[in-house]
Amino acid sequence: MKHPEYPAWKQKLHEIIYEADTPAGKLFDIVLLFFIVFSVVLVMLESITSINTKYEDTFYIAEWVITIIFSIEYILRIIVIKRPRHYIFSFYGIVDLLSTLPSYISFFFGGQNLLLTIRALRLLRVFRILKVTRYIGESNKLASALRNSKAKILVFLFAVLIICVIAGTLMYLIEGENGGFDNIPLSIYWCIVTLTTVGFGDIAPITPLGRFIASLIMIMGYGIIAVPTGIVSAEYNRMGADGHHGNTQVCPNCNEDKHLDTAHYCHKCGHLLNA
Amino acid sequence: MKHPEYPAWKQKLHEIIYEADTPAGKLFDIVLLFFIVFSVVLVMLESITSINTKYEDTFYIAEWVITIIFSIEYILRIIVIKRPRHYIFSFYGIVDLLSTLPSYISFFFGGQNLLLTIRALRLLRVFRILKVTRYIGESNKLASALRNSKAKILVFLFAVLIICVIAGTLMYLIEGENGGFDNIPLSIYWCIVTLTTVGFGDIAPITPLGRFIASLIMIMGYGIIAVPTGIVSAEYNRMGADGHHGNTQVCPNCNEDKHLDTAHYCHKCGHLLNA
Amino acid sequence: MKHPEYPAWKQKLHEIIYEADTPAGKLFDIVLLFFIVFSVVLVMLESITSINTKYEDTFYIAEWVITIIFSIEYILRIIVIKRPRHYIFSFYGIVDLLSTLPSYISFFFGGQNLLLTIRALRLLRVFRILKVTRYIGESNKLASALRNSKAKILVFLFAVLIICVIAGTLMYLIEGENGGFDNIPLSIYWCIVTLTTVGFGDIAPITPLGRFIASLIMIMGYGIIAVPTGIVSAEYNRMGADGHHGNTQVCPNCNEDKHLDTAHYCHKCGHLLNA
Amino acid sequence: MKHPEYPAWKQKLHEIIYEADTPAGKLFDIVLLFFIVFSVVLVMLESITSINTKYEDTFYIAEWVITIIFSIEYILRIIVIKRPRHYIFSFYGIVDLLSTLPSYISFFFGGQNLLLTIRALRLLRVFRILKVTRYIGESNKLASALRNSKAKILVFLFAVLIICVIAGTLMYLIEGENGGFDNIPLSIYWCIVTLTTVGFGDIAPITPLGRFIASLIMIMGYGIIAVPTGIVSAEYNRMGADGHHGNTQVCPNCNEDKHLDTAHYCHKCGHLLNA
Repeated sequence: MKHPEYPAWKQKLHEIIYEADTPAGKLFDIVLLFFIVFSVVLVMLESITSINTKYEDTFYIAEWVITIIFSIEYILRIIVIKRPRHYIFSFYGIVDLLSTLPSYISFFFGGQNLLLTIRALRLLRVFRILKVTRYIGESNKLASALRNSKAKILVFLFAVLIICVIAGTLMYLIEGENGGFDNIPLSIYWCIVTLTTVGFGDIAPITPLGRFIASLIMIMGYGIIAVPTGIVSAEYNRMGADGHHGNTQVCPNCNEDKHLDTAHYCHKCGHLLNA
Repeated sequence: MKHPEYPAWKQKLHEIIYEADTPAGKLFDIVLLFFIVFSVVLVMLESITSINTKYEDTFYIAEWVITIIFSIEYILRIIVIKRPRHYIFSFYGIVDLLSTLPSYISFFFGGQNLLLTIRALRLLRVFRILKVTRYIGESNKLASALRNSKAKILVFLFAVLIICVIAGTLMYLIEGENGGFDNIPLSIYWCIVTLTTVGFGDIAPITPLGRFIASLIMIMGYGIIAVPTGIVSAEYNRMGADGHHGNTQVCPNCNEDKHLDTAHYCHKCGHLLNA
Repeated sequence: MKHPEYPAWKQKLHEIIYEADTPAGKLFDIVLLFFIVFSVVLVMLESITSINTKYEDTFYIAEWVITIIFSIEYILRIIVIKRPRHYIFSFYGIVDLLSTLPSYISFFFGGQNLLLTIRALRLLRVFRILKVTRYIGESNKLASALRNSKAKILVFLFAVLIICVIAGTLMYLIEGENGGFDNIPLSIYWCIVTLTTVGFGDIAPITPLGRFIASLIMIMGYGIIAVPTGIVSAEYNRMGADGHHGNTQVCPNCNEDKHLDTAHYCHKCGHLLNA
Repeated sequence: MKHPEYPAWKQKLHEIIYEADTPAGKLFDIVLLFFIVFSVVLVMLESITSINTKYEDTFYIAEWVITIIFSIEYILRIIVIKRPRHYIFSFYGIVDLLSTLPSYISFFFGGQNLLLTIRALRLLRVFRILKVTRYIGESNKLASALRNSKAKILVFLFAVLIICVIAGTLMYLIEGENGGFDNIPLSIYWCIVTLTTVGFGDIAPITPLGRFIASLIMIMGYGIIAVPTGIVSAEYNRMGADGHHGNTQVCPNCNEDKHLDTAHYCHKCGHLLNA
């Protein structure tokens, strides 16, 4: 059952580029990962002034090597997939495009100052590294525990935010500009810093009453951290030792990637999956 | 079964203003939410000196628009409910009144300095936003997990406070005024900052012995954070996948808002609920 | 079954002072608590120089009032118990004695400087407040969850300490005195501050390598905080909804205070318990 | 069933040195622990300049005493084991060697500056203290709970790291060098400090947008700390009250140390275990 308009070499390449079931597919993923990490390290090093001044030429060449490799990969990804629109407008499709653009833009428009800002977009590619965690079945479980408790965690964070708005306004009225609580948004920022137990210390209450309120905020933050933990913990318990699937099949037609181990056809579009 | 002294238009308006089961009721809630958020943002922006100086006139007009809208809402809420006292002396009734007063006070008495302080009262209205979470069934579960473990959490926080009193006094005796531990209340404040793992760093021990005690406090804080977490987690586990009710019916007579989905009459006062 | 050498009035007073089952016993506890909190607040206020200078005479009188009340209570406690040694050498017995001594010492020896230091001992009495939590059955459950997981938590904290020793030495070698890591004990202190996510910021790494190691320590601290939490959480789950006993019976003979609700005789010494 | 090439005295010594089932074995462990703690304290004190200058000679002698004791112990360990290679190339074997070397190196090569750096290697011996936790059965359970959830925790920390890379780059672009965010690696370091709720405060955002992003990072850090906790907690629940073995038998042939209480022969090499 082969689609006439979908030749065998495309099917083969699709399996290598989009999946990781075959040795070639795994190798492709590893090589790609290497280049992503390499490009990320490159952007980091370029941001350090002393290093950037010294190795400017090397960075320029490395930039172009990576840009060309990513461009080839991007074009290949579009060619081998049956419905390119599914890939182009997906999250990873846009990230992949954005990570090749910076060099071309700086080449044609030459915005030296703008350069690093756009190039930082390439860092978004690190998200692709997360895809490797597919190999580790645990990550699926982790993700689904998070997904299941998303609503509860959002409600919780929402309540935390409202507490911060009220407490921040209170601190602004008590401490005022002497303690560095210059305006309400800043006080709310301080409240978030305190409630989450981060505590930078760039702003800190100095009046006795302010310190008393701050103590209440801190103890509250220390006490309610239990809530999200309890949620995820309970969710995780409920999931128990349920099976998970480490399957890396991707539909060559619609790019759907969550198939059962026993699936032969895509459960979304009905297209035949690569064996 | 209609109460003679409770006309149909009041019943209709009650359903719109106090409940969210009908499209009109939902719309009312959303519009109200928009104005609350708008008024909160307004108070925040006014507290930023540079912005306040520039747009003083705009703020003045916006203030009055919001005051008038909130006043109309407050009066409507009193009119449509059968026993207004239940609303007026409820938490939300007082908050609603407080949020309309500031502008009138500043108009009649003109306290320019006092202005912002009173206007900040309007921020209390953000609590009303929490009411929206009624739509999200999870929040009920969250709230009841917290309510069930309230006693345990209070005992825990009480014990934490006593540890802070003892440890704070100890640090005051060891560090004294050189390390910034000027008096016992301040030392206790520092202890709370440290035990809750916030750690501002505005006060920090400088003697070896003080640092040793500080280490013990920190390790204790790191170890006992497990206790509230364990409590809520266990509570949450116990509740399991029990049903929750996302019902938004409110009794037009006594304002009680926790009715079963199948309830026709208020379980508190026996009044007929709006269908 | 009355002991001949234990008269009824002693038995009566014992019930009032040591127990809280009768109205008189509860009242005694509440009055005592009031004086403890009062004495604690007194010591705190005295430590604030500005307040102490102003109200020196008032503080002097209040000191003596509290000292006399605590002395009477201490003597009564010794009289009404059958075997005073059990009380005198118990934790609370020593604390009670220590909390009456300071005023007498300063009266006879007049050490003005030493005064506050000794008087701070009185703060130890706040531990007695914890005894009130007997009324709240939850605290027994909390305490036993902590007791059951004590061994595990100690092993955990022990491992944390060893990690801190190694990481602290490493940071000392990397950062040296430039970053404020003057010696190994100080580096270990910094490590504890960092691993427990307190982060004062009085000492912070400045070399790239030091910051990299610091990142590892922080991520480790963020990750392993899960361990004590998991322990207590699991312990708490295991205990489930088991019954707890809020019984406040105390044996008039040996002062043992954990009796079953149905107990008539002390399970430790066989003495008859007050009905 | 005695091995001809393994004399009785070796077997006896092996039991004392490598195991802790006999009184002599326990004594050996305790004496060894004492010397390890002593040597660790010594290295710490030497790093404090004021103390080192004063007691230089005492430190010199103590150094050599410890070196000789550790050397004798190292040689004994090699002699009494049947296959020394198993010990020499094990983790503890290398640590034991490294902890005796520093004094010899400084004696022959006299690198005064290098001295402390190498001597700090001796601190690695504190890991041996962890071996004592064998006595406490709980530590086995703790270790296996951690081992079971290692994969999940690593995936989680991996995701945290990627979030930090993205958020760090964002903060670098927003704050720039004014806020102390000099380059991307430094911004990522700041992000880790913030997300893990450590919050040193040596670097802190100063622009409103930067503070807004920082708030998001903090709230995220506060929310997702639930994940590792939930994992370990669930793992711990699953393990339940399963039996653990506090057995300290070690095979005299291959040094394997996890034997069942009822084992007579090593489950790895079949050698007879000491009774």
